[in-house]
Amino acid sequence: MAPTTETLTAERILEATEEVLRRYGPAKATVVDVARSLGVSHGSVYRHFRTKAVLREAVTRRWLDRTTEALAGIVAGDGDPETRLRDWLAALFAAKRRKAGGDPELFATYRVLAGEAGEAVGEHIGELIGQLTVIIRAGVDTGAFTSADPATTAAAVFHATDRFHDPCHAREWELPEIQGEFEAVVHLVVRGLRAA
Amino acid sequence: MAPTTETLTAERILEATEEVLRRYGPAKATVVDVARSLGVSHGSVYRHFRTKAVLREAVTRRWLDRTTEALAGIVAGDGDPETRLRDWLAALFAAKRRKAGGDPELFATYRVLAGEAGEAVGEHIGELIGQLTVIIRAGVDTGAFTSADPATTAAAVFHATDRFHDPCHAREWELPEIQGEFEAVVHLVVRGLRAA
Repeated sequence: MAPTTETLTAERILEATEEVLRRYGPAKATVVDVARSLGVSHGSVYRHFRTKAVLREAVTRRWLDRTTEALAGIVAGDGDPETRLRDWLAALFAAKRRKAGGDPELFATYRVLAGEAGEAVGEHIGELIGQLTVIIRAGVDTGAFTSADPATTAAAVFHATDRFHDPCHAREWELPEIQGEFEAVVHLVVRGLRAA
Repeated sequence: MAPTTETLTAERILEATEEVLRRYGPAKATVVDVARSLGVSHGSVYRHFRTKAVLREAVTRRWLDRTTEALAGIVAGDGDPETRLRDWLAALFAAKRRKAGGDPELFATYRVLAGEAGEAVGEHIGELIGQLTVIIRAGVDTGAFTSADPATTAAAVFHATDRFHDPCHAREWELPEIQGEFEAVVHLVVRGLRAA
């Protein structure tokens, strides 16, 4: 139980919520559990998050945003666009594998939460495709890539690599051949982007 | 109940098994149900399929083989390799969408069965990638495609289009934007195959 003198911030509630979800699972975790773990009343939690659904969606967004933030540095980097694209795809795959393999229960929990939070997931995918669009547009500007419509091309790159980031493929990420498959798909995709 | 005068073939048992699975679902369907629907003893069924597991695997293979057979005609066609590749990918996606959307309960049943029959599914995927390898090798021969290793390239094409044939993406096949996403990925993949 945390000292009650510490200010109750939204971030502290979200941290506690993740811990409660990890411990009880998405079906059983309640707002009362979250309040208890913080040593506050459930009313105090509701002052930050109006309903249980709002709290669950916020913790899902926080989880998804961690990935987006980690990749933003690659987008903003000053390497050539092809290198940034390869680094971005590799970093996304690595982050997903780490989440799935490092803490399978929490990953399963977040898959349930993501199923409830369709809008948050849609926005997350939109942000990731937006990051790819920046890299592809940069490649078109330097003459490295060809694309009549970088946003559509970015979506195609994202979907062509679904196998390496969509959680529905998580079981396949443990196969010994997965790294070779990833490299072969990236090779094909990068060739497809290169200026003729 | 079928007339008992008709010869009990493996094919008739497999047809009846699919119907029983459709009716009772994969959890409840039994060999006795299959025998009853054919008007024979369950011993007669076991003479063709030694165990329930063998019967379930055989019906799964039959379901998977239907797709492979439908695509074999495209592989054997005499169109140019790029057209055959586009037709093959479109036909695979159409077949999967038809199965998932046309008879969702049977599709769900076969997803459960496929989960039990890892070897049959692995062989099925191997056959599909084998078909793609034939088309890509033909493209390398005509000078339309570049590939140092057609089998690896074929696997990359297959995995880059996972979104449009892997059953874990079935829900997304109903999205209005899915056809545009498919075309954008095929465009990218075909560009990646073309000789420089």
